[in-house]
Amino acid sequence: MNRDHFIAGDWGTSRLRLALCLGERVLETRQGPGVGALREPAGEALRPLIAGWRQAYGPLPLVLCGMAGSRNGWRETAYLPCPADLRALGQAALRFEADEAPVAIAPGLSCTSRLGAPDVMRGEETQIAGALALYPGLAAGRHLLCLPGTHSKWVCLEDGRVRDFLTALTGELFALLRDRSTLMRAARPSIDETPDGKSDEAADGFEKGLEAVATLGTASLLHALFAVRSRQLLDGRSHEWALSYLSGLMIGADVRGAIPLFEARAEAVLIGDGALNDRYAHALRRLGLAASCLDGEQCALAGLRTLWRA
Amino acid sequence: MNRDHFIAGDWGTSRLRLALCLGERVLETRQGPGVGALREPAGEALRPLIAGWRQAYGPLPLVLCGMAGSRNGWRETAYLPCPADLRALGQAALRFEADEAPVAIAPGLSCTSRLGAPDVMRGEETQIAGALALYPGLAAGRHLLCLPGTHSKWVCLEDGRVRDFLTALTGELFALLRDRSTLMRAARPSIDETPDGKSDEAADGFEKGLEAVATLGTASLLHALFAVRSRQLLDGRSHEWALSYLSGLMIGADVRGAIPLFEARAEAVLIGDGALNDRYAHALRRLGLAASCLDGEQCALAGLRTLWRA
Repeated sequence: MNRDHFIAGDWGTSRLRLALCLGERVLETRQGPGVGALREPAGEALRPLIAGWRQAYGPLPLVLCGMAGSRNGWRETAYLPCPADLRALGQAALRFEADEAPVAIAPGLSCTSRLGAPDVMRGEETQIAGALALYPGLAAGRHLLCLPGTHSKWVCLEDGRVRDFLTALTGELFALLRDRSTLMRAARPSIDETPDGKSDEAADGFEKGLEAVATLGTASLLHALFAVRSRQLLDGRSHEWALSYLSGLMIGADVRGAIPLFEARAEAVLIGDGALNDRYAHALRRLGLAASCLDGEQCALAGLRTLWRA
Repeated sequence: MNRDHFIAGDWGTSRLRLALCLGERVLETRQGPGVGALREPAGEALRPLIAGWRQAYGPLPLVLCGMAGSRNGWRETAYLPCPADLRALGQAALRFEADEAPVAIAPGLSCTSRLGAPDVMRGEETQIAGALALYPGLAAGRHLLCLPGTHSKWVCLEDGRVRDFLTALTGELFALLRDRSTLMRAARPSIDETPDGKSDEAADGFEKGLEAVATLGTASLLHALFAVRSRQLLDGRSHEWALSYLSGLMIGADVRGAIPLFEARAEAVLIGDGALNDRYAHALRRLGLAASCLDGEQCALAGLRTLWRA
């Protein structure tokens, strides 16, 4: 058994990201189908993807997080209830053997959210554990983390423990409204738009979306959304502008709702994709909060590495 | 030309409702495709639907409202800007002749909403004109109307004039979340549920959805939606319950946002489908407001009748 190399995998609903690691180094990466697209058992789907590495290095330890541990994944892992000490993630991982190699799957976390409803995460706990490994300053005191995405997670971290968290449907709802609603059917992108013009349009649309949320008062996102359509039809706004306006409305509503709920005053830590982090950081700055942006993939990898070591 | 009979048509995006009328009486009704489903010019699509009536009574005057007056409808009618006197709807209708019969299409209304965005309606103005004809008490003083539907309209009516209005995406967003999101994929309806159990489930789910919105505080609908899924997965709630919970969240957020915005204190008038009116009335009562429920189809017909007379 090769003990120097291992395979780290972040297996989400829509994508599998595999990395062949040697200690701190990533030697190679590969992508595969998400758990949502699997037509065969997860272990079988994985086999051809890692066959080359196995041929080169022999059976390799495999460490996974995300939907791999869900009911429809490889093997179901229990949720660690909050408050949850992320140093216990390794002990709580589900460990078994497959094709003569050890496999570990991270547990998810569960909590009762500040809105009184049950809430869960799978995968983000490993990213947070990775952030703690990469940025030890996070291990002391209280921090508000936000992991933006299809389902954004707002997380209260207290002395290295996840106290509680809250899921927002921001990314999924944005995609539904972009692809399936009447809001974006008002106009089609014009081929005349120059790249520069496009980017100005996008920046202005996003800004105006954030502004619109700031002036909503008691009104709801429901009452603000129709303007995405009407500003195209009646104000002559471009498709590009409207899409960014929609993004500003969604991210603005997400940030404005979460910040008071988590009593954040000075700073939040964003863990995610660079472009999305930037949008959230911008929305946070408008509320007077600083944002530290951490790369989501790097944090996942660092978290999987700590699981492997455990 | 037959002058006693006329055809009234409410031609929306998804459905055409035609009625053969003799004065106050409806002799026959018929349904056809919505403007969104038309593959031929609207006038041609209409011809076979009214051929029988024409054969029996000769060329008949035709009065239409809704998306028939949109760019993709029969002929585009201008929007009447608010504040708009609904008694002027007949004069503002677009009139022309087709197949030797007079046609009138109602104009839509436009305004700048209380949230500062351009807003429009097509069809609801005719329902409101009909409500004024059927319930003359609405013509004096100030009234808040709500026309729930795919795009709900909140309308401030002042001495028979529409002062302004606001569109909420409630129905469209509900359908998207029901049919296309991850929220309702958590479980499937059980065939073991009895009709009685179902109805209790639905009532409780709706109530709990309204309650959840009432305790949102600064949080947004975005933060409340994930519970539709998690309460199925973790609290064992049924598909039926969760669907009604989602409905309660959406209608609750719509009503809670609109009521303070329109400074409504005692009452609102609902114009729509019976079951939907009931849900909105329930949400209004929870805020201490009484609701009068008017039938949307009857109001549309009464409005088209006033257009025909004009």
